[in-house]
Amino acid sequence: MSTSVGQSKVRVDAYDKAAGRAKYTDDLCDKSALIAKILHSTIAHGLVKSVDTSAAEQIPGVVKVITCLDVPDYKFPTAGHPWSTDPAHQDVADRLLLNRHVRYYGDDVAVVVAEDEVAAMQGVRALKVEYEEYPFVLDAQEAMADGAPQVQEDFPGNILAHTSIRKGDLEKALQEPGLIKVEGWYDTPTVQHCHIENHVCFASMEAGRITVVSSTQIPHIIRRVVGQALGIPWGKVRIVKPYIGGGFGNKQDALYEPLCAYLTTQVGGRLVKLECTREETFVSNRVRHAIRTHIISWVRSDGTLAARKFEAFSNQGAYASHGHGVVAKGMGAFPQLYPCDNVECDCWSVFTNRPAAGAMRGYGIPQAMFAGECHIDDICLSLGMDPLEFRRRNLMPVGYVDGFSKNELYDDTFNQCLERGMEVIDYQRKWKAYQNQTGPVRRGVGMAVFWYNTAVWPISLESSSCRMVLNQDGSLQFQTGETEIGQGCDTAYTQMVADAVGVPFEDVHVISSQDTDVTPFGTGAYASRQTYIGGFSIMQTGLLLRQRILNYAHELTRMPVATLDLSDGRIIRKGDGRVLMTLGELATEALYSTTNSQHLTAESTAQIKSNAYSFGCSIAEVEVDIPMCKVKLLNMVNVHDCGRLINPALAEAQVHGGMSMAIGYGLSEELKFDPKTGKPLNNNLLDYKLSTCMDHPDLEARFVENLEPTSPYGTKSLGEPPACSGAPAIRNAVLQATGVAVDRCPITPHVLFEAFKEAGLITD
Amino acid sequence: MSTSVGQSKVRVDAYDKAAGRAKYTDDLCDKSALIAKILHSTIAHGLVKSVDTSAAEQIPGVVKVITCLDVPDYKFPTAGHPWSTDPAHQDVADRLLLNRHVRYYGDDVAVVVAEDEVAAMQGVRALKVEYEEYPFVLDAQEAMADGAPQVQEDFPGNILAHTSIRKGDLEKALQEPGLIKVEGWYDTPTVQHCHIENHVCFASMEAGRITVVSSTQIPHIIRRVVGQALGIPWGKVRIVKPYIGGGFGNKQDALYEPLCAYLTTQVGGRLVKLECTREETFVSNRVRHAIRTHIISWVRSDGTLAARKFEAFSNQGAYASHGHGVVAKGMGAFPQLYPCDNVECDCWSVFTNRPAAGAMRGYGIPQAMFAGECHIDDICLSLGMDPLEFRRRNLMPVGYVDGFSKNELYDDTFNQCLERGMEVIDYQRKWKAYQNQTGPVRRGVGMAVFWYNTAVWPISLESSSCRMVLNQDGSLQFQTGETEIGQGCDTAYTQMVADAVGVPFEDVHVISSQDTDVTPFGTGAYASRQTYIGGFSIMQTGLLLRQRILNYAHELTRMPVATLDLSDGRIIRKGDGRVLMTLGELATEALYSTTNSQHLTAESTAQIKSNAYSFGCSIAEVEVDIPMCKVKLLNMVNVHDCGRLINPALAEAQVHGGMSMAIGYGLSEELKFDPKTGKPLNNNLLDYKLSTCMDHPDLEARFVENLEPTSPYGTKSLGEPPACSGAPAIRNAVLQATGVAVDRCPITPHVLFEAFKEAGLITD
Repeated sequence: MSTSVGQSKVRVDAYDKAAGRAKYTDDLCDKSALIAKILHSTIAHGLVKSVDTSAAEQIPGVVKVITCLDVPDYKFPTAGHPWSTDPAHQDVADRLLLNRHVRYYGDDVAVVVAEDEVAAMQGVRALKVEYEEYPFVLDAQEAMADGAPQVQEDFPGNILAHTSIRKGDLEKALQEPGLIKVEGWYDTPTVQHCHIENHVCFASMEAGRITVVSSTQIPHIIRRVVGQALGIPWGKVRIVKPYIGGGFGNKQDALYEPLCAYLTTQVGGRLVKLECTREETFVSNRVRHAIRTHIISWVRSDGTLAARKFEAFSNQGAYASHGHGVVAKGMGAFPQLYPCDNVECDCWSVFTNRPAAGAMRGYGIPQAMFAGECHIDDICLSLGMDPLEFRRRNLMPVGYVDGFSKNELYDDTFNQCLERGMEVIDYQRKWKAYQNQTGPVRRGVGMAVFWYNTAVWPISLESSSCRMVLNQDGSLQFQTGETEIGQGCDTAYTQMVADAVGVPFEDVHVISSQDTDVTPFGTGAYASRQTYIGGFSIMQTGLLLRQRILNYAHELTRMPVATLDLSDGRIIRKGDGRVLMTLGELATEALYSTTNSQHLTAESTAQIKSNAYSFGCSIAEVEVDIPMCKVKLLNMVNVHDCGRLINPALAEAQVHGGMSMAIGYGLSEELKFDPKTGKPLNNNLLDYKLSTCMDHPDLEARFVENLEPTSPYGTKSLGEPPACSGAPAIRNAVLQATGVAVDRCPITPHVLFEAFKEAGLITD
Repeated sequence: MSTSVGQSKVRVDAYDKAAGRAKYTDDLCDKSALIAKILHSTIAHGLVKSVDTSAAEQIPGVVKVITCLDVPDYKFPTAGHPWSTDPAHQDVADRLLLNRHVRYYGDDVAVVVAEDEVAAMQGVRALKVEYEEYPFVLDAQEAMADGAPQVQEDFPGNILAHTSIRKGDLEKALQEPGLIKVEGWYDTPTVQHCHIENHVCFASMEAGRITVVSSTQIPHIIRRVVGQALGIPWGKVRIVKPYIGGGFGNKQDALYEPLCAYLTTQVGGRLVKLECTREETFVSNRVRHAIRTHIISWVRSDGTLAARKFEAFSNQGAYASHGHGVVAKGMGAFPQLYPCDNVECDCWSVFTNRPAAGAMRGYGIPQAMFAGECHIDDICLSLGMDPLEFRRRNLMPVGYVDGFSKNELYDDTFNQCLERGMEVIDYQRKWKAYQNQTGPVRRGVGMAVFWYNTAVWPISLESSSCRMVLNQDGSLQFQTGETEIGQGCDTAYTQMVADAVGVPFEDVHVISSQDTDVTPFGTGAYASRQTYIGGFSIMQTGLLLRQRILNYAHELTRMPVATLDLSDGRIIRKGDGRVLMTLGELATEALYSTTNSQHLTAESTAQIKSNAYSFGCSIAEVEVDIPMCKVKLLNMVNVHDCGRLINPALAEAQVHGGMSMAIGYGLSEELKFDPKTGKPLNNNLLDYKLSTCMDHPDLEARFVENLEPTSPYGTKSLGEPPACSGAPAIRNAVLQATGVAVDRCPITPHVLFEAFKEAGLITD
């Protein structure tokens, strides 16, 4: 096998993206498109009694007005999950294309389709909606209380789901004498993905079928959801996904594709474009779940865990979207990361009158790690124990196997990652140096680890398909249903294909765009699955193509197939290493042979019935200005064991991006709502304090490459993990610096002001 | 097998084309495209000494000027033939992207790329070319003469090729006493295809590769030619073919795709569009070969053929394009259609300073049939014999086998076709009634038969590939490299796929557009090959998919595969006919099964090593106004044996279109050149007398369905045959009406004026 994998190849799309040649959804939309604009609810909860469309319909250029009173009555789910034929495993279908029962400030009430954007906006403004207002609730625990407003008809008490984990016997364990009880409540905020490209899609009809071009992470899933939402056979829908400007999970949901698809059917199949503004993206797409976590640990004085209790209340917002999976994944980490004989875990996903929460990079793990890793340092504070020591003693040991996922910790990953990270940041020296500081400005170091399951098996289906098409020059095209969303998987795949088939990197042409009509089935970008899962089908299909090539080489040379090799695009006789022909010569002969003409291609589906742990840690160094209530991040390192690195440079970039998100999560980002109206207060990039490079120190990324045995290429997840442990590392560094254990993120001056006051560090 | 095949299904693209929703090349071109305009030669023959580009480059909006002095030195062929790895079978490479040695009035000298069309045209007009003029020659036989101007350096004497057929012993045969010698010269004109959509293409670069979207019949071949012309690996080129507005063979050539591809490389990969005007299409694309044919038959008084001699001089124009294949195909018909023991045939393709002649509907057969079938009636005139009787006696007998193609006449096709046609037009009664007319206005009936070989085997490669992709609802997509060019093959293929797999017609979604990156290899629309050749791969791939479906049905039902059937989209237990599940249920389970997930698809290449005779006839009735020298076509019928009709309505439409072309060929169409300058005189649709429905009687199409044994669907060629026998049928009807044997087409008043004068029917 040659060795594209492992090299820092330049991204296959680098030049086109840098030069502005790469085409994104809006670039591809014909200028003749009709423009759709949505009227959003201006109340947090209520019923639309009527919509007066008459003024809007008089506006020149307005072509069609559709209201929540007009849309078809097919409830549909939006989560980007693989479909299941088992109704018990299907996502909750709880919304229509437009909603008469509006459930949050920003819900979709009506839409105006017009010849241009100005007319569409004028039309939206001219609509007159009469609401019957209901009381609303914004907090998950308040929504669980008796008499709370009911958000979704089918879910009395607003509980979308409640699941539990029980291990050992908590009651009995608590009878052990001398246990120290450490209890904490930890709050994480509603945040938004803030990908560069807002969601945009356009739809038209040909031959009685609907084509939607969309900025999505999950084209094959969107096809299914559009079919469900419109009540039409799924084969009548075609989804095309061009390059997209980021998604981070927001585009792992059906956003406005179903509505846009419906609109084209209402205007005779004409092209209709629906593009979200940033303000809409913040509120009317998806957000990350705000989760409140309650943890109690009963610890022995030697720093071992006797018993633990975990409760998480996940703010689902108004619609189920990804639903309970997010908080349940976070809860799943709890008993595995620090194994303990006696554990009780419960989590609830609760409907509120906030924007719908869906998938976001980390999928419950950033919240769970914030709570869990803050709590570890809180334990250490209670015990007077070194957090590093506590982690070394209690973290999942080598050889640990999870009974459900069958995941195994094969290597001493945690210690390797921590050692590596501490070295980079000179942790041990600083930890000692920063003890017992006084004065207004203090420094601290802190750490946090994370746990991440790769892909979704065994909870859901994992399969991936791909196809390879050989050209006359020995180069080949590669198609897969898995999606490039900016993370670089096209480049990683190109490297993997090159090695699987035996051709140079430059000879693999990846088809970046998915078209559900012709692209082999794959569920798309989520769960940090693609390199791991896609690897199975790439290896399998590559070997299939390779075998067909060698079989044809046998036809041409009469050499037994077993004596032939394909390497670096050349057919080689293994015995003496002689190059018998180039792959281009073989491919040309195969295509044009009047004896045996064959277009050499290969296609296959791989079903994956494994999963892999991905681990790592963050270590942060901060300087806290106590009177100013301000945290300055001085240094930060993430160390990851994601198995073999397909492309080290891209892996590093992936980690940098995740660290940036973690910094914003830890220090500045929160989507706020007016408690009196439920109205979002900062749904724009001026008032929402997105983390930028101005807020970052140099970001350090390091890797520990323990090859993952279950993976064809030895790799496992790296997409989401970098966003998981940064915030608690920062919080724990603040704790070392100040002795104050903040119970929430983001750790803004407002939060520190209250915390420092309470701790007596400052006064009003 | 269900029965989509044989039904007059509505075209799959009917509604979109009628509603203007179907997208053609220009519809798909982004409005930001740069516009390329070509400077064409204003002399018929010479050398470009210099091009002054300075004024053009000063024009605002002009981005780039490329002249014949700048282009790379890769000579390339343009013919839409399958590539051959045998240099002896490769097409002649005789042109560059722009040509310094200009060889016809309209040759490509320079190109201006500008921000808009106005600037591009201003730029073209501002170019100053200095020529060294050479003498030129427009006639093929004159070009063969000693001292004629030499058009192509590598072909002294201007002979591109000369081939011969020899059978028996002509010298000896002529010694038979009592033979009647009948000799004729027959001239056919230069005509142009006049498809509705002029050739247009646009090109851009991504990831170091060039994409060309083009109105072409042959996307996979264009990919190869662009690679050759630019001297780059063929895998660096991607061709996309949308719907096209006709081609008729003109787009079975690389037209401006290579130049357009080159231009994008010269402007940093920016999008460049090159669209031909109608005037350019007439002259600087391709035309039909004007062929002059000389036939001598030595006939016995009983109407049998003792010996025959055939010579054809084909006017190739300035570039080889399809070259000798056209006249050679026509010559090939001669000894087969009326078998004779002693035959001498020769044909020459000769370069002249006219536009390059390429493929056009019929590919040499319209010319050969005009000469051959006129000559048959000339024989009958000499013998005083009934042309019907003569044909019955001498036409290829049932059981005839051609040694080279292995084609066989399986049925009494000719008599069946003639009988059917005569019945429609009441031929026998009219033939008698129209004998011995006098007066200025006379009527006549005439007939002509044709012979057409389906596809190109054994001269060239015949292979076809396709792919089928099953959807969750049991519908499927179908991809093939063969191309819809307006003739309706998408619909015919949909019917064939439906029957091969066992699904309803409505559940087959044909992917009309070809994209060489992902579309299985197929050479495209020419040689009336697609329904015949494509049928092999459709049947093969359909059965492959069907087998995979039934194998999966076995997984789900445990019923032996052999006891299961797939019909009308349902899995059926053969024993009792019970429907076990729908295909949609099976496909959904297969895709989402957590036990065995499979995306059910199938792809295969079929290589075809057979060919099939396609036969038929035209019968025409005319009224000739002798003083006005005018022919009015009163009635016309074409009868075809194209094997099984896949779609009778589409077959009829195909025949109507061909008959219209034959009428224009017979009566009005000719591209004329100024003998003093070589300048085309009527390269526009006002002065070029294209046949329109105003010139037509009701066109009658009839079929004789003798199933073709070598064809999976029993079908054979119908694309080109309708254009082959109409012109000589009209000429023979004029002959019956007037007794005047016109020796050329089109039979315009000018031609008749001379002929009637010579015959003494009119005086000056």
